[in-house]
Amino acid sequence: MNCLIKDLGAQVGNEVTLRGWMYNRRSSKTLHFLQLRDGSGVIQGVVVQAEVSPQTWKAAGDATMESSVAVTGLVREDKRAPTGVELSVRDVEVLHQAQEYPIQKKEHGIDYLLDLRHLWLRSTRQRAIMKVRATIIRACRDFLDQDGFTLIDAPIFTPNACEGTTTLFETEYFGSKAYLTQSGQLYMEAAAMALGRVYCFGPTFRAEKSKTRRHLTEFWMVEPEVAFNDWQDNMALQERFVSAMVGRVLAECGPDLKALERDTSKLEKVVAPFPRISYTEAIERLQAAGRPVQWGDDFGAEDETLLSESFDRPLFVYQYPAAIKAFYMKPNPADPRVALCNDLLAPEGYGEVIGAGQRMDDLEMLTAKIQEHGLPMKNFEWFLDLRRYGTVPHSGFGMGIERAVSWICGLQHVREAIPFPRTMYRNTP
Amino acid sequence: MNCLIKDLGAQVGNEVTLRGWMYNRRSSKTLHFLQLRDGSGVIQGVVVQAEVSPQTWKAAGDATMESSVAVTGLVREDKRAPTGVELSVRDVEVLHQAQEYPIQKKEHGIDYLLDLRHLWLRSTRQRAIMKVRATIIRACRDFLDQDGFTLIDAPIFTPNACEGTTTLFETEYFGSKAYLTQSGQLYMEAAAMALGRVYCFGPTFRAEKSKTRRHLTEFWMVEPEVAFNDWQDNMALQERFVSAMVGRVLAECGPDLKALERDTSKLEKVVAPFPRISYTEAIERLQAAGRPVQWGDDFGAEDETLLSESFDRPLFVYQYPAAIKAFYMKPNPADPRVALCNDLLAPEGYGEVIGAGQRMDDLEMLTAKIQEHGLPMKNFEWFLDLRRYGTVPHSGFGMGIERAVSWICGLQHVREAIPFPRTMYRNTP
Repeated sequence: MNCLIKDLGAQVGNEVTLRGWMYNRRSSKTLHFLQLRDGSGVIQGVVVQAEVSPQTWKAAGDATMESSVAVTGLVREDKRAPTGVELSVRDVEVLHQAQEYPIQKKEHGIDYLLDLRHLWLRSTRQRAIMKVRATIIRACRDFLDQDGFTLIDAPIFTPNACEGTTTLFETEYFGSKAYLTQSGQLYMEAAAMALGRVYCFGPTFRAEKSKTRRHLTEFWMVEPEVAFNDWQDNMALQERFVSAMVGRVLAECGPDLKALERDTSKLEKVVAPFPRISYTEAIERLQAAGRPVQWGDDFGAEDETLLSESFDRPLFVYQYPAAIKAFYMKPNPADPRVALCNDLLAPEGYGEVIGAGQRMDDLEMLTAKIQEHGLPMKNFEWFLDLRRYGTVPHSGFGMGIERAVSWICGLQHVREAIPFPRTMYRNTP
Repeated sequence: MNCLIKDLGAQVGNEVTLRGWMYNRRSSKTLHFLQLRDGSGVIQGVVVQAEVSPQTWKAAGDATMESSVAVTGLVREDKRAPTGVELSVRDVEVLHQAQEYPIQKKEHGIDYLLDLRHLWLRSTRQRAIMKVRATIIRACRDFLDQDGFTLIDAPIFTPNACEGTTTLFETEYFGSKAYLTQSGQLYMEAAAMALGRVYCFGPTFRAEKSKTRRHLTEFWMVEPEVAFNDWQDNMALQERFVSAMVGRVLAECGPDLKALERDTSKLEKVVAPFPRISYTEAIERLQAAGRPVQWGDDFGAEDETLLSESFDRPLFVYQYPAAIKAFYMKPNPADPRVALCNDLLAPEGYGEVIGAGQRMDDLEMLTAKIQEHGLPMKNFEWFLDLRRYGTVPHSGFGMGIERAVSWICGLQHVREAIPFPRTMYRNTP
């Protein structure tokens, strides 16, 4: 009977056939210990020379690393094994004898591994990251679907820039130009006026010449938007959303986090409420710590790390200067120098994972802002329509998936947080 | 108390405040019947002149269509109402008096409506389509997640073409070129060797100069891939997947399908098993019906409609000529003229919704195919690696979301099946 490794716990005492790959092997004179993987898990298969045919003994010993195999054996309980079972092998069939596998146990350079990303994904570590990533994505979607949100996919081809015009990827579009989206937010504002609570979840693009460990040219973003939410409702939503996401990973990805040697005690502290400080207070804290920042400056990575170090959970920093935020942010009516926005900084130095804000809902103010920023008014007429026909207060946020994955998995660089990373220097495989 | 319309059933006898938009109004001398919408639903609010203040009476009568309003009133049971309740209005506050709304009850041309897509989404019909779309997407993801699949997002920027080189969108990529993905399949093959059962779900792009009602330049696709599945396992998976998707929409989207006037009896028939005919049999059927097709031809839309008309559920057509299918399809060893592939044709003339196949798993054969198709070998070395290191039989499929939405909603054109459609002629709003 063909069986997946993840399901073997229910097969103790039965003979099964596993189809997968030879992940590793230790051998003595009369024993082979095979590490077998099939994508659903890893199990040890024990081959005893005295108990198998000469052909099986030879096949088990000759199969190269990553050869594909069908292995038949008896499932036995083994309390020491991570899965609780091992396989007493009776037969080994080599389906395809792999050429010498280019990824060894020794340390390889990151560029070498990224060139082999299509194979590197087979490693226990990369598989664990991908499992956590998939769980994060499912957690985000489930939270929003259960909270009354409707998924509304934003378009990828857009006629205009959202987050600035210097970092756009451009393509010919049947004789005119199109740009790859940097954010679905403007579209979500339209959708929120139709469906109340909406989100998009898709790839976004920035042609930034950034070489930091936080930047990809292609990254995934979830962007909820809610009609009638103000900036404080918005923070409460983010808090529930992020807590639910981290809680779900802790509940479902124990073995993966263990494989990644993640200190889960840090993640267990991520429960609402999160601390909130104003941008102005953040500046004061940074200055008191000796950082060379002035009111009006944006934060660098070191500033964010320093701010979040005082807290054991994600930190809201709210009401940044309007001048350093996007044109569509609503200014604080009581102090128009600042916007009704917030960032959410992850703990442990992982920096900004969410950018958020209440949107400018007044037709005249928004028109003036678009002019002030020198944006082509014609392209924003549809966006202004949302302020002509029943405008309401509304707020939303965007969370970068790879930054969330990096934080939750404890990665050094976002390029491991996505299956096939795209950076300034890399567009392959 | 602020309340969403969808939750009013539990508030009978209570006074609540709804925040939303004036969707419609009928008035008599002493009564206004307000149709109020808030994205979560629509409810009737009854304003009795004798029971409200002169200000409220005037506000209720003056509010233009799509004005944003806060309406306070008593929730009353009303068995005639679709939601089972209506609102006895006590107070109406106009938050923003809308300018004259450009979409009226009268028939508008499709281009006019698509120009106003950001507003058109507010209509009952478009909202219903979006709800069904979101349910279809959730159903696909839930089915796969529960069936042991891992989501692996494929990259959007790719160095090479998958489905042919003439229909690629191209962009500058830091001094070189990148292309927008046409399919994540090649990447899913790599991921299936790492995680066994995988899928991607994202936007894909075709720069086709197609003006048919089935084509978009940007569309979403779900692409599962399974190690060790052969072409027949693959059809069995598709059958379960499509049945589950349709069943979920029927279970959850009753009011939406009703708003779309969809004949659900047709959808209720979509249960496994689905009929299966070979390409060769399909050609014979078409010729017998007088269609001018020869063995070796691809089917046109009319051919697909004619084939599916004999069946009340989706139809598998399998083993098309290898020459009209992608280079990576595995030929039938017993008859190499045909590939171990299938399409799935939706009923009611909706045509192909799935393309599927077992992949070529032999290094030499695949190398020869890439040469034969004149593709740049260098770009496919990583893909060939999958056949160098433990190759196994594997199969997968791709389902176009907008085609599935069109079929299930009963739409005339895929452009209504996506929030912001992109076609050869349209890249706005």
